[in-house]
Amino acid sequence: MPTIADLDTPTILIDIDRVEANLKRAQDHADKEGYALRPHTKTHKLPYFAKRQIELGAKGITVQKLGEAEVMADAGIDDIFLPYNIVGDKKLARLKALNERITLSVTADSPDTIAGYARTFTEGKPLTVLIECDTGAGRCGVQTQAQALALARQIEAASGLRFGGLMTYPPKHGFAQSDAWFNDALALFKEAGIAVPRVTAGNSPDMWTPGGGPVTERRPGTYIYYDRMQVRDQVASVDDCALTVLATVVSRPTGTRVVIDAGSKSLAYDPVAGDLSLGHGLVMGTELVVKSLSEEHGVIEMPVASDWPRVGDRLRIIPNHVCVVSNLFDSVTLISGDEVKDTLPVASRGRTD
Amino acid sequence: MPTIADLDTPTILIDIDRVEANLKRAQDHADKEGYALRPHTKTHKLPYFAKRQIELGAKGITVQKLGEAEVMADAGIDDIFLPYNIVGDKKLARLKALNERITLSVTADSPDTIAGYARTFTEGKPLTVLIECDTGAGRCGVQTQAQALALARQIEAASGLRFGGLMTYPPKHGFAQSDAWFNDALALFKEAGIAVPRVTAGNSPDMWTPGGGPVTERRPGTYIYYDRMQVRDQVASVDDCALTVLATVVSRPTGTRVVIDAGSKSLAYDPVAGDLSLGHGLVMGTELVVKSLSEEHGVIEMPVASDWPRVGDRLRIIPNHVCVVSNLFDSVTLISGDEVKDTLPVASRGRTD
Repeated sequence: MPTIADLDTPTILIDIDRVEANLKRAQDHADKEGYALRPHTKTHKLPYFAKRQIELGAKGITVQKLGEAEVMADAGIDDIFLPYNIVGDKKLARLKALNERITLSVTADSPDTIAGYARTFTEGKPLTVLIECDTGAGRCGVQTQAQALALARQIEAASGLRFGGLMTYPPKHGFAQSDAWFNDALALFKEAGIAVPRVTAGNSPDMWTPGGGPVTERRPGTYIYYDRMQVRDQVASVDDCALTVLATVVSRPTGTRVVIDAGSKSLAYDPVAGDLSLGHGLVMGTELVVKSLSEEHGVIEMPVASDWPRVGDRLRIIPNHVCVVSNLFDSVTLISGDEVKDTLPVASRGRTD
Repeated sequence: MPTIADLDTPTILIDIDRVEANLKRAQDHADKEGYALRPHTKTHKLPYFAKRQIELGAKGITVQKLGEAEVMADAGIDDIFLPYNIVGDKKLARLKALNERITLSVTADSPDTIAGYARTFTEGKPLTVLIECDTGAGRCGVQTQAQALALARQIEAASGLRFGGLMTYPPKHGFAQSDAWFNDALALFKEAGIAVPRVTAGNSPDMWTPGGGPVTERRPGTYIYYDRMQVRDQVASVDDCALTVLATVVSRPTGTRVVIDAGSKSLAYDPVAGDLSLGHGLVMGTELVVKSLSEEHGVIEMPVASDWPRVGDRLRIIPNHVCVVSNLFDSVTLISGDEVKDTLPVASRGRTD
């Protein structure tokens, strides 16, 4: 059986035992708290883990781009939520083809997006559309409940569309805020006599929030691997982190400076908590951080001069943000302990279209 | 002839007329100032442009990883400089195979790295090794001229190695500093009776520095495309920027907020001048910046409420750092004006090994 020592670097290692524990713990929480779990697969981009999430009880999956949805559908996943405004004739044609073969739902937050859906889909095979709501995160989404209602009416008026409910990407630590927004919306929709089949929110930083509010479905993604951002948010511990970048020390210019063969093209530049001074990764089993990155080098500063690590030694780096790291590598290596179990292509890597 | 309007988004557009002008201007400077130009191809990762750089007079190319060197050699490039400490038996075997078929040079900054080279290469097909010097950038490299001399002696003592000269990644705006470092080194090497065949430095931020110092070769990379970082450093103007990310407006949640379909998985998070408040890309033809990124969305804030741009409109974004953006896409589209000329695979994308 090959081991980590047999691998070339830099490469992504996925600890499958940690993954399994992370997936089960989240599904158990969903089951106990009474919400449907629809994991966001933008984190791992692997049909293999998407299938495992569904086996464990997930209702389906979430993807962030149409290209990802196509890859997951090709791999046999048949219930996909794409919380995105799909815009443009080329994409609408692809969306229509996808809707023919799986249970698909998408979002819209403008009359223009809905108009595109309405002219593409037909009664025979309608598209399910949820309204995206900006409940405080300041990205996409309607600003008011009245706007949501108006868009729902536009959807209901189109023969090829079905109103699927309300969706938000909630503000971080803002479940109370998004719940309040949704409660007001649900009151308005009830008054208007429009049923809201599904209210979907949720993300890894707030995944342990109890259930019971208006939200019927949550879409965490990062929880499969966790990362420094999640550890910082106290969602998980360092020992839950399942994805590491295996790197080799290639230079020891000084007693305190350690240079590894993983830079921004392997670890990505995304800061923790918006603070670049917190560095770009944690050296597993230590408190050392990757202080700075160039494209192909990472620099670690030791607190005091040390002979360790030497040139040729290997370190495992817990990234700041695993979702973007998955997107940098063509394949990942599955490990259990030090044993290499398998290598998988990152099937939907680069499918930003 | 297809045009930009026929492309799906997000995608990378390369303006080949700007590329040609950028390449020629840099080669002219090298010719006039009397240094050899060895462009760093980590920026574009395209054999097509590497060959054009050589046609225009470049001495050969630079790559940052062994995997990139292999791709470029496969494409027929026969003079490659790999300024990296190559460490580990697997990589050394690959390096040996590569050295059999092209004119290759590498670097080392430690006895350990040189020992690896020495036990791998033989008299029959020796490896050319330059010493990497830390002239102030604080990354890899020996700290003193005496260390450089000691490593050169270690190289000369190995039958399978040839001392190829001195290399630095200079501190930004630090040519004077690296020149001074090298002048001291050259004096020491002269005293020791060791010829220094080549002194290589240079990078895009300081590419217009006059020649005439100890440096015989420069390795700029970004100058083929330029980007916001280079514009900030006044190396080029916005109108020289040849790489843009074509994006579609997918949401207009408010009169001032514009959301595009390019996020950190298309534009990368790298800040300009280490300052995240400067945003993550410039909207071409405007002074608007991409204020914030999530993985699949970019948010632009308009200074005043505006109907433009509408959902479905397209914007071209000049990235902060083009080298990492090239590494996010599987292919690039070559354009002239609005006409699409060709689509090329980013051949050495993801070859971080």
